[in-house]
Order: sequence, then structure tokens, then C-alpha cells
Amino acid sequence: MNRSTVVGFIFGLGLVFLAIYWQLCKILNFALWSIFFNSPSFLLVFGSTMAATFISFPLSEVMGAFRAFFVVFKKDPPEVESNISEILYVIEQARKNGRGALDAEIPKLDNFFLRDTVQLIWEGYHDQEIVDILEDRIATRLRRERSESDIFSSMARISPAFGMVGTIIGLMITLNTMDPSHMDNMGTNMSLALITTFYGVLLAYMIFKPIATKLSRRMLEEAFSMQVIRESVPMISGRWHPIKAKDFLVSFVRPGKREEVLSG
Amino acid sequence: MNRSTVVGFIFGLGLVFLAIYWQLCKILNFALWSIFFNSPSFLLVFGSTMAATFISFPLSEVMGAFRAFFVVFKKDPPEVESNISEILYVIEQARKNGRGALDAEIPKLDNFFLRDTVQLIWEGYHDQEIVDILEDRIATRLRRERSESDIFSSMARISPAFGMVGTIIGLMITLNTMDPSHMDNMGTNMSLALITTFYGVLLAYMIFKPIATKLSRRMLEEAFSMQVIRESVPMISGRWHPIKAKDFLVSFVRPGKREEVLSG
Amino acid sequence: MNRSTVVGFIFGLGLVFLAIYWQLCKILNFALWSIFFNSPSFLLVFGSTMAATFISFPLSEVMGAFRAFFVVFKKDPPEVESNISEILYVIEQARKNGRGALDAEIPKLDNFFLRDTVQLIWEGYHDQEIVDILEDRIATRLRRERSESDIFSSMARISPAFGMVGTIIGLMITLNTMDPSHMDNMGTNMSLALITTFYGVLLAYMIFKPIATKLSRRMLEEAFSMQVIRESVPMISGRWHPIKAKDFLVSFVRPGKREEVLSG
Amino acid sequence: MNRSTVVGFIFGLGLVFLAIYWQLCKILNFALWSIFFNSPSFLLVFGSTMAATFISFPLSEVMGAFRAFFVVFKKDPPEVESNISEILYVIEQARKNGRGALDAEIPKLDNFFLRDTVQLIWEGYHDQEIVDILEDRIATRLRRERSESDIFSSMARISPAFGMVGTIIGLMITLNTMDPSHMDNMGTNMSLALITTFYGVLLAYMIFKPIATKLSRRMLEEAFSMQVIRESVPMISGRWHPIKAKDFLVSFVRPGKREEVLSG
Amino acid sequence: MNRSTVVGFIFGLGLVFLAIYWQLCKILNFALWSIFFNSPSFLLVFGSTMAATFISFPLSEVMGAFRAFFVVFKKDPPEVESNISEILYVIEQARKNGRGALDAEIPKLDNFFLRDTVQLIWEGYHDQEIVDILEDRIATRLRRERSESDIFSSMARISPAFGMVGTIIGLMITLNTMDPSHMDNMGTNMSLALITTFYGVLLAYMIFKPIATKLSRRMLEEAFSMQVIRESVPMISGRWHPIKAKDFLVSFVRPGKREEVLSG
Repeated sequence: MNRSTVVGFIFGLGLVFLAIYWQLCKILNFALWSIFFNSPSFLLVFGSTMAATFISFPLSEVMGAFRAFFVVFKKDPPEVESNISEILYVIEQARKNGRGALDAEIPKLDNFFLRDTVQLIWEGYHDQEIVDILEDRIATRLRRERSESDIFSSMARISPAFGMVGTIIGLMITLNTMDPSHMDNMGTNMSLALITTFYGVLLAYMIFKPIATKLSRRMLEEAFSMQVIRESVPMISGRWHPIKAKDFLVSFVRPGKREEVLSG
Repeated sequence: MNRSTVVGFIFGLGLVFLAIYWQLCKILNFALWSIFFNSPSFLLVFGSTMAATFISFPLSEVMGAFRAFFVVFKKDPPEVESNISEILYVIEQARKNGRGALDAEIPKLDNFFLRDTVQLIWEGYHDQEIVDILEDRIATRLRRERSESDIFSSMARISPAFGMVGTIIGLMITLNTMDPSHMDNMGTNMSLALITTFYGVLLAYMIFKPIATKLSRRMLEEAFSMQVIRESVPMISGRWHPIKAKDFLVSFVRPGKREEVLSG
Repeated sequence: MNRSTVVGFIFGLGLVFLAIYWQLCKILNFALWSIFFNSPSFLLVFGSTMAATFISFPLSEVMGAFRAFFVVFKKDPPEVESNISEILYVIEQARKNGRGALDAEIPKLDNFFLRDTVQLIWEGYHDQEIVDILEDRIATRLRRERSESDIFSSMARISPAFGMVGTIIGLMITLNTMDPSHMDNMGTNMSLALITTFYGVLLAYMIFKPIATKLSRRMLEEAFSMQVIRESVPMISGRWHPIKAKDFLVSFVRPGKREEVLSG
Repeated sequence: MNRSTVVGFIFGLGLVFLAIYWQLCKILNFALWSIFFNSPSFLLVFGSTMAATFISFPLSEVMGAFRAFFVVFKKDPPEVESNISEILYVIEQARKNGRGALDAEIPKLDNFFLRDTVQLIWEGYHDQEIVDILEDRIATRLRRERSESDIFSSMARISPAFGMVGTIIGLMITLNTMDPSHMDNMGTNMSLALITTFYGVLLAYMIFKPIATKLSRRMLEEAFSMQVIRESVPMISGRWHPIKAKDFLVSFVRPGKREEVLSG
Repeated sequence: MNRSTVVGFIFGLGLVFLAIYWQLCKILNFALWSIFFNSPSFLLVFGSTMAATFISFPLSEVMGAFRAFFVVFKKDPPEVESNISEILYVIEQARKNGRGALDAEIPKLDNFFLRDTVQLIWEGYHDQEIVDILEDRIATRLRRERSESDIFSSMARISPAFGMVGTIIGLMITLNTMDPSHMDNMGTNMSLALITTFYGVLLAYMIFKPIATKLSRRMLEEAFSMQVIRESVPMISGRWHPIKAKDFLVSFVRPGKREEVLSG
């Protein structure tokens, strides 16, 4: 479980409910709770946002994005530091036993991208060919993950607009049925009109935009790890001395974690 | 038929009508339906948006964009995976029968861009010359398709502005004809003023922006397929072994589809 | 005459007047027409926008932009296809009669940039020197034309802001002179306050932004034609065979027009 | 004096006052003038914008930006054409008297950047070394000037936000002290609340944003002049023939001014 | 203490309180002060912004950003000029005593990045290897610092949205409990609804956005210092003459400070 995401969701939605509760306490009318739950209004905002998303993106990509939604609740992927430890291990083995013995190390590696890289080195491709292949793989992965993040960004832009559409619909009906002799229910109707704006902004800023940001940052983090692996290709195939490789690879580590990686 | 687009349109517009219906049910006055259909208001918003678009872009490009509008209802273009299968087939034939026999394969190919590429290889141009020609073709295609997508993006920005212009016109007339002694028809007039904003936002977020996004993504998808074909030029003309070519081309395929392409 | 621009202006402004007319018909008071024409309000919005533009840009560039305003009503510049026909003609002459005879062709060419290019080739500069000179010229032209387009973009951002300033001024005076005993003229005052917002948005979205887009697209179209000419320098000076040159130059032509250019 | 800037300021602010005057004339109450001058409101908007700017940027850069504010009232810097005349003069001297005699020309040059360049050529550095040094100088200059322009852009974004903050403060106090029995002074209070929005938008669109645009364009103009000087380094040190140098340098001149530079 | 930041905070918040005070003085009711302090409203805006931030970014990065918040109150990092003096000192030592003697200078240096660079030169790496390592270190540092600045930018975008959510909640409750017979407390309720918008905009424009700008500028300043050190690698390892090195390094110094650095 990715605690930061889960805690954020519970805390954020909890605060909104608490704010409503505090305001309601002052007027002591708990029946008013119901004014914040209105399924047709929610359906309008959420459904129209989905509809516009289905028009904008191919079906398979929208489905991929929904799967990605659940991925953000999983644990964060390992940071670049753990990959560097694995790379250093492979460099030591290449130095000791040579390029031909690397196939024995492949099953021991956690990172699938490093496994593929070591496989290509062991198969005897030239460094430049391997780097070309790895760069194409990184680009292919980024293309897919950027589309997932784009879908949520797009939903975050669309949902406040449909919240506004719902509020205009509500206002128009309120204004047409307005009876100047008794204005009693006008307040309730205006409030009903506002609820779609409330849903639209809440969906955009509490769900869609944060998910888009999380997916986008995770994508960049993974791309960075892959680029570090790509940089290490000549170190493995060229059988660099581990101390020299450490001098290069330590540049990718945050200052606070350098000791840890160097000793590992 | 592109089901995702069609379903999106029907579902999205259906939800908006349903939302109006639900609100109207509560007050049981079906005559109110008419307040959401006002052809002068629609003409103002849609027509002014068209007018501003005609000033901004040359006539031929706007016409091209309208043709592109119907294209998005057609089936999605084949994905990059089917192109890679064709490229692998050509590489195998080049390996077996040599460069000179490639002309017999051209009519068998589905992808027109791959057909042109194989033709150029068969005609004996150098790899670099072919890559120059292909890159110019990709750029020319992107230029035309980007202009189509830009036109719809531009319309998505313009239509809410003219929705607002219409609302201001309505408000000004309402305010000028306001009779403080009987305020009965003021609500109806205000509602009439709001309808253009409703049309402007709905057109922008349910029609223009999604079409712009779909065209823009389709363009990038096609450009990617073309770049894969460009990358394969040295593999065909250099008569690479199909297994080596597969190691390179598989990098462009999404992980979930790699088995399928490799076996095909 | 550039029909698309002229028709767009007439159609767009006509629709806005028609919308006002329809609304007014319902209340049958044609004296109300006057509420949409208020020269002090128009002067405030248009004049302040001009003033802010004069502070932002040097006088000579603003004057250049106003001249460019009239240019967009002229015919569109010839498309890239007609330039390619001329380039092919020059390549044929260079192939037949050699570099030295090119000076006889210069007066026959329509495109001034191609004339300059052929002149430089005839004068005996190296290909790289010519390409350097041509790239500097393209950049100089783009600099000037981008500034023209930027000025109209900037005016499109400024005019709604001054429309809002005018509305605030009007609102403040209305609120200060409000007499709760008779509210009759309050509607008229509020309407007067709104008219500047109406002018600001109309100027921005019907005049300034479309002109900026048109200038910007025309600039890119011309830059593309110039780049095609730059690409053809080695073909002319190297006396390429016209068939090979066609294989290269056809890549810059839209698919639908390829036959036409190849046969021409 | 930079007339375009000064005239723009006077004209723009004059129009705003005129608009207020026209509106006031209709109600013939000149005491109302005072409603547009409210020093606490102005202090809130201007002061808070300053405060947020001081948090965002180091003290020395904010001071530099204020100095730049007065610079825009000075004359525009000489255009690129006058620099090209000076460069051509230096090229002629280098051709005639050789590299060693260039030190006699340095005091005659107006442009300080060209003086530095000729100094470096005279000192015998290689062309590539000089170009490296000049590019670093251009980048250093751009860094400082971009920060000045950024500060005014940032102020243009902040000031409408604090205008809105002031209006909310005013609204909250108005709403809390509202006495339903006599609503007379409510209009005056609402107007007082709106004045901060008026100041915020006016400051942003009449002062801060135009200054930012002017500084940014001046910066690009200077950078362009410097790049032309950088391009001319091999022409001076290589003692090019002035006619060849003219063929190259004329590309940086606008078509309308070419005759003037070539004859000069 | 970074005086510019501290003074900005005190001055800015002071002005807002002063504005409230002036407005309140006119109505002489100091009990109204309380309307601007409402902890549930503040908790809603600040807490929801935090919650959305925790969903968007990993826990460790949010914590890093909070530490960075306090960093901006510390003194500004030394400017590039002081680094250039240190670099010139190292170049002189390298010239006098050779590369092998550089290890004695390392402890005397203040800048940690220059210390690492001199260490790598002393260890005998090639210039290109050192530049590769330094560029990776600069990129790693920028990655971490850009994420800190991004978090505050993101909070500046989120907090006005949750301010608006709070206002909608307040409005909906006000409208539902509105009693047309006595409207007395409606003003108070509306004011209570507006307070969250006030907090949202104030947090965004007085705290979050200025901090993001300050972090972003500090990052660019540090990156520039590091790039100057990277540029000086061949000067140190190649034992350049200090006068030639000065000619190059002086290009990175602002004109006003050149004398100071050259004499130092």
C-alpha cells in the first residue's frame, strides 16, 4: 500500500466532510446533510467527463489509464539507489568473470530492464547497438505512460467545465420557475444548481489532477532509472574497474544517500 | 465505426439531457424543455465561432478540418504492431532474395508508407537519401494534420467566449427593459441570456476539444509508425538477419504484445 | 481579396447584430439598438488597448503590425506547390545549360527568394555559404513577422482586461449613485457598465486573435516555402537529374497534389 | 525620451480618467471623483504585490528591475542596422591594414560589444575561443535582463490577485455590517470593495505587463545585435573582402533598409 | 537571515491586516476582527491543499519541500562572483605547482562542487570523463530541487480551488437555510462562505507561489555556478595562464562586478 496516497485521499475528503459538518452544527439541522449528496448531479459531472474522455482517447488507452489508477495505491517503485547497487554488482561480476559469464547473473537481478540489458551485452551486441535498443524501449514505455497521465490531466480540465454546465442548467430552470410571490424554494434550487460545480472542482483537484501528477512523476522516476542503466552499458561491457564505475554512478545518487550506495 | 467516439458522443449528450430531465421532473412542467432549445442562441455561438475560425485559417484548411471531423468516427488506424509484422516480412524477403527482388513484395504490403520506402530501397538510393526523403514526408504529413487539430483547438477556445458575448447581450437587454413594478419575466430573460454560455461550454468541451485531442493523438500515433519504418531502412537495405532485426524492432512494441509480434 | 477573411468578418459581426435584433424583436423596442453603441465605452476599451500596446512595443513595430492588418485581406501567398514547380524548372535548366547559364533564368522567376538563391549560386558561392546566408534571411524575416503576430496576440489578451476595467468603473458609479427609493435607472446603468466587457471580448475574439492566428500561419507557410528552396540548393548547384530531384521534392507536397506537381 | 512609452502611459491613463469623467458628467456630481482615489486601497494592492515580489526574488534583482523601469523611458537602443555599418567599417580596415592595426580602430567604435570583440581579435585569440567568450557574455547579459523582465511579469500576475483579496475583505465587512432596515450605504461599501480590483487590473495591464514586454523585446533585440557581431568574427579575423561580407551581413537587415546599409 | 524574504512576509501580511483595520475603523466595531479568523475555514483550505499534495507527490519529496521552506529564510547562497575568485585561485596553483600538487588546495576551498572537481582532476581522470561526471551531478541536483519547487507551485494552484470549494459549501448551506422573513444573518453567512476564498488566494499568492519562485531561482543560480566550474575543468587540468583564464571567466560576471573579480 502506498500510504501517502491513501492517507491523502482519506484526509482530504475527510476535511471536506468535516467543514460541512462544522457549518451544519451551527444551525443544528442534520437533515441538511442530504444537500451534499445528489446522485443525478454526480452522474452528470462524472459521466460527462467520462464521455468526453472516451471521445478524446482510444478505448484501450482509457482502460489502461483506469488500471493505472489502482497502480498508484500500490507501493512506490524502488528508487534509483537500489538499481545502482544492482548495476555495481553486475559490473563487479563482469570485471571478475568476463562478459561470457554474465548469463549466470541474469536470474539474480530484480530490475527487468537491467536483466534485458545484461542479456543484450551477453549476446555480443556492440555498445552503440545496445544503447539504440534501450533508448527505443525507454521511449516506448514513456509514450504509453505519458498517455495514461495525459488522460487524467484531461479529465481534470474537463470536470470543472461540466460542473459549470450543470450549474447553468440548474440556474436556467430556477430562473424559469421562479415565482416572485413566494421565494422560499429559490434558495434550495440555487443550492441544487451549485452542487455540480462543487463536484466538478472536487473531482478535478482531489482525484484527477493528483493522480495525473503522481503518474507523471512515477514515469519520470522510472525513465531516470532506465537512463542510469543505459549509461552503465559501456561500464559492464568494457569491464571497468568497480572503483571507477562508482565514481561515475555516484553522481546519480542524492548526496544524503551516497555513503549507503558506496558501501553497499 | 470507431465505437469509442460514437458511444462517447451519445453517452455524453444523453447525460446532459437526462440531467435536465431529472431537474424538470421535480417541477413537472414539460413545457420547460423548450428553454434549452433556442436556435438563434445556438446560431450566434456556433456561427460566430465558425466566423472567427474562417478569419484565422485559410478556407482550404478549414474544409480539411471538417473532413477530418468525420474521419474520427471511422475505425482507428492499425496500431504500430501490425506495421512491425509487415516490416519483419520485408526484412525476411530482403535477406532471402536480395534487394533486387523487393519490387515483387510491394503490392503485397498494406501500409502505403512502407510501400514507398521499399520502392525507394529497390530503386537503389543510399540509406541516408531515403531517410532524408522519409523525414520530409513525415514532416509534411504532420504539418497538415497539426493544422487540422489546431483548428478544433482554436474553436474550443473561441466558443465559450462567444457564449459569454451572447450572455452579455441578453443581460444588457434584460437590464434595459427591466420593469421594477413586475419582475415576473426577468427570470425568463436571464435564463435566455444564460443559454448561450451553456451552448458555448458544451460545444467546447463535448465536441471541439475532444475532436482536437483525438486528431492530435492519431497524428502522433501515425508519426510514430512512420518513424519505426524509417528506423527499419538500414535493416532492409543491409539485409540484416531477421533475428537481429526482431531484437531491435521489439523495442517499439508494448510489453504485453511482444510475444504476439515475435511469433508472427 | 482574401475571401475567407472578408466573409468571416462580415458573417461574424452580422451574427452578433442578428442576435441582438432577434432578442429586441421579442420586446419590440427598436430604440434599444442604441444601448449597444456607446462611443465613450468603445474608446475606453480600444484606446486603452492601443495605449498598452504602444508602451509594450516600439512605435515602428506597431505601425508595421497595422500595415500587416490590411495584408490579411489581400490574396493568400502562393502555396508551396507552385514554388516547387519553379524549383524543378531551375533544376532542369541547371542540368541542361550548367551553372553559368543560370543568370538568364533569374528574371523569369516569380518567387523573390528563389531569385536571390539562384543569383547566389550563379555568383559561385559554396553550397554551405549559400545555406548559411539563406538561413539568416529566413530567421530575419521570421523575426519581423513574429513581432507583428505577437502584437495582435498581445492586444487580444489586453482588450478583455480593459473591458473589465470599464465595467468596474461603471459598477462603482452605479453603486455610489444608487437611490434605494427608485431603482428604475439602475438597470440602465448596469447595462452601460457591461457594454465595455462586450466590446473587449468581441474585439479580442473577432478581430485581434484571428488576425494574430492568420499572420502566424502565413509566416509559417512562407518559412516552409523558404526551407524547401534552401533544401534545393545542392540540387541546383550539383546539377541533379530532374527525376531524382522530383523524388526528393515531392515529399514536401500534400498527397492530393502530387500528380499535379510531378507532371508540371 | 522614448516617445512611444511616454505617449502610451499618458494616453492610456488619460482615457481611463476620461471614461470616468464622461460617466460622471451624466449624473453631474463631481464629488464622486473621490470614489476612484483611495490611498489605503492602493497601498494594499501595490504594497502586497511588492511584498510578494520581495519574497520571490533577491533584493538586488528587484532593485535592478526598478532601475530598468526608468530605462524604458530612455531612447530605444540603436537598431541592428547601425551595428552592421560599424562591422562593415571594421572589416574594411582589417582588409586594408591587417589584424595588427585594428587597435587603432577600437576607440572609434560606438558599440561596446563590438569594441570588446575587436580587442579579442587584435589580442590574437583563435576564432573559436572568441566565439566561446562572446557566447558566454551574451548568455550572462540575457540572464540578468531576463530576470528583470520576469520580475515585472510576476508583478503583473500578482497584482490582480491582491486586488481580488482586497475586494473580498471589503465584501466580508460590507456583508457583516449590512443593516436590512436601511440599505443606503451598502452601495458605497460595495463600490469601496471593488476599487482594489480596479487598481489590481489597471496596474497589471497598464504598467507591469507592458514594461515586462518592453524589457523582454529590448533584450531580444540586443541579443540579436550581439549575435550578428559574433557571426562577423571570422570575417574580421579572416580579412574577408568587404563585398563578400556585405552579401552575408545584408541577410540580417530588413528588406526595406538594405539599400541604406549597402551604400553606407 | 534572508532579509528580503522575512521583510516581504511581514510587510505583505501586515498590509493585509492594515487594510482590514482601516476598513473596520470607519465603522468602529472592533469585534468584527473575528470575522477574518476562522480556524475551521483555514483548516479546510490548508488541509485539503496538503491532502492533494500528499496524493500527488511521494512522502519523502513533500518532506524535502517543507525543509526547503525553511531554507529560503536562510542567507542567499554566495553569488557566482565568489566562485570565480576561487576558480582563479585554483588555476594559479595548477599553473605554478602542476596538477599533482592540487590535493593540498582542496581543503582550502569553500565551494563543495569545486572541491569535488579538483579532486577528480587530481585523481587523473580525462577532461571529458570529468565533464560527464559533473554534468550528471548537476542534473541530479536539479532533479531534486525542481521537485521541491514543483511542490510549492502545485500547492499555489490547488489552494485557490479549495478556497472556492469552501465558498460553495458555505453558499449551499446559506441558500438552504435562508429564511425570507428575516434576512439578518444572511450577510454573516455569506461572509463566512467568502472567508475560504480569502484564505485560498492569500496562501497561494503570499506564501506558496513566492516560495516556489524563490526555490526555482535559487536552483538556477546554483546550476549556473556549477556550469561555470564545469567550464573551468580544461583551464585547471590544461594549466592555462591565469590571464587567459580571466579573459574567459570574466564573461560570466555582471559588468558592474568585473573590476572586483579581475583584481581579486
